[in-house]
Amino acid sequence: MSDNKNLTPEQLASFVIEFFQNSMPFNRALGFQIESLEDHEVQIRMPWNNMLMGNPVHKILHGGATASILDTVGSVVALMYGIKQLKPEEVEDFKNTLANNGTIDMRVDYLRPGKGEEFIATASVIRRGRKVAVCRMELHNEKGQHIASGTGTYLVG
Amino acid sequence: MSDNKNLTPEQLASFVIEFFQNSMPFNRALGFQIESLEDHEVQIRMPWNNMLMGNPVHKILHGGATASILDTVGSVVALMYGIKQLKPEEVEDFKNTLANNGTIDMRVDYLRPGKGEEFIATASVIRRGRKVAVCRMELHNEKGQHIASGTGTYLVG
Amino acid sequence: MSDNKNLTPEQLASFVIEFFQNSMPFNRALGFQIESLEDHEVQIRMPWNNMLMGNPVHKILHGGATASILDTVGSVVALMYGIKQLKPEEVEDFKNTLANNGTIDMRVDYLRPGKGEEFIATASVIRRGRKVAVCRMELHNEKGQHIASGTGTYLVG
Amino acid sequence: MSDNKNLTPEQLASFVIEFFQNSMPFNRALGFQIESLEDHEVQIRMPWNNMLMGNPVHKILHGGATASILDTVGSVVALMYGIKQLKPEEVEDFKNTLANNGTIDMRVDYLRPGKGEEFIATASVIRRGRKVAVCRMELHNEKGQHIASGTGTYLVG
Repeated sequence: MSDNKNLTPEQLASFVIEFFQNSMPFNRALGFQIESLEDHEVQIRMPWNNMLMGNPVHKILHGGATASILDTVGSVVALMYGIKQLKPEEVEDFKNTLANNGTIDMRVDYLRPGKGEEFIATASVIRRGRKVAVCRMELHNEKGQHIASGTGTYLVG
Repeated sequence: MSDNKNLTPEQLASFVIEFFQNSMPFNRALGFQIESLEDHEVQIRMPWNNMLMGNPVHKILHGGATASILDTVGSVVALMYGIKQLKPEEVEDFKNTLANNGTIDMRVDYLRPGKGEEFIATASVIRRGRKVAVCRMELHNEKGQHIASGTGTYLVG
Repeated sequence: MSDNKNLTPEQLASFVIEFFQNSMPFNRALGFQIESLEDHEVQIRMPWNNMLMGNPVHKILHGGATASILDTVGSVVALMYGIKQLKPEEVEDFKNTLANNGTIDMRVDYLRPGKGEEFIATASVIRRGRKVAVCRMELHNEKGQHIASGTGTYLVG
Repeated sequence: MSDNKNLTPEQLASFVIEFFQNSMPFNRALGFQIESLEDHEVQIRMPWNNMLMGNPVHKILHGGATASILDTVGSVVALMYGIKQLKPEEVEDFKNTLANNGTIDMRVDYLRPGKGEEFIATASVIRRGRKVAVCRMELHNEKGQHIASGTGTYLVG
């Protein structure tokens, strides 16, 4: 029954967008939009939205929103290697597997006040083993200003 | 004009609840409820809400929601020392000051899947200097299960 | 040939002291002395020694010495569960296995200048899975002053 | 008496080498050699030495040695801005000032076993404020393999 073929790039994008962008209520509430999906680099966009505001005196992103998008973009890139090797008939099982994976720990460094019209989070893998992946994440605004950095350790496989 | 008196405990609670709980859109969206305000320990409650869900397969808190409440409870306790010494007429100025304070960095350790009907985040200060405070934060569910820990470094004063 | 018995407490202590205290040159140079070995808590002592000095103006422990003892005490407690289940004939193999384990990441919080005649590092496990253990570590001096805290994520098993 | 001139590049290098490399016993014991001193990037070299060995089964750097050199290279770059503005007659006072500065917290990510003939640690500043600097650090071996990364938060000024 297996045709021994992996997801096509379109099926891959569709699976990741469906799972991480549309079916996770928290990601939907924060407005995450997956922009780019490479094996070793992923990009997620978050347009400004008043709900994301922390400090009401200035119009600044809440530190929790920053942490949330960094954790999410790190998770996706940590799992990309496994996702890319999926065959279409394994997609449903993989959704269950994902529940056993997840973030072990994360550090966030807040470098500048989170001001901007939109924010772009990127992540790349700096260590990939059979059990654990470590990722570096960055958040920039639409002017290219570096808002925050992060490092996350993820359970994989 | 100054009466040389600090905020009464009622004024203090009212200021902190107004500022951190009601006037920050992100904290309101996540449903944070400030429960207890001591100089060295603060507690915030977050009832379960489907919007907080990460993984849709199981009913589990998004790691970003965990990071958000830990960052917030740490911020409040880091600032409590300064807040407790406010005089009523300094409250408005202090709101502007707060914009210059904020989280420098934070680590979150995810210890157990975030399952529960409600979550209680607590924070205490482990280092307080004139410039910087370091706080330990913990998240438990209503059964007392330890969901996550964090450590945050905050710019103060 | 197997007698189905684990290491006796004396054999266990002897193995851990031999491996971590005597045969690791760096631990020997810094003067680590393993004091207590429980499944969920380990203690290591480090007497003051001028080689450990960072700042020469004051007599203060180098931050690297603090990080080194915290990483070491965390490693030992992370591995205790596996070590306690060893049978005497498995000890040699386990030494090779240890080379594939190790620290994934660590955070250290420096809370007070490292002054003292001796320092006691303690560690306990806050998350133990099949692949990864997370530990909390603390460093105190002989007066009980809390010098530093740490959190480490370790690959195990 | 002040001639209103800062340290010359030679005096600067000589001060930093004297203070961080020669007069700190721990840095001397680990064999740190300051190679390059720019305002925004510093490099320290550590030749292999059996004393630096952690695991005796393989010839691998102790995680504490890695943490120590990363903390040190981060400290130097965090303080470079202030050091570059010193006038020759302020050098002695500055040595006392340094005792009040120091690492607030640090994260280390261990990416590969620390094998090599020598190790090069580099650091650059990613946030510099009046009170606090945040630095990124990396450790490579002589083949350019990336052994470890770190992020440190330092009290300055």
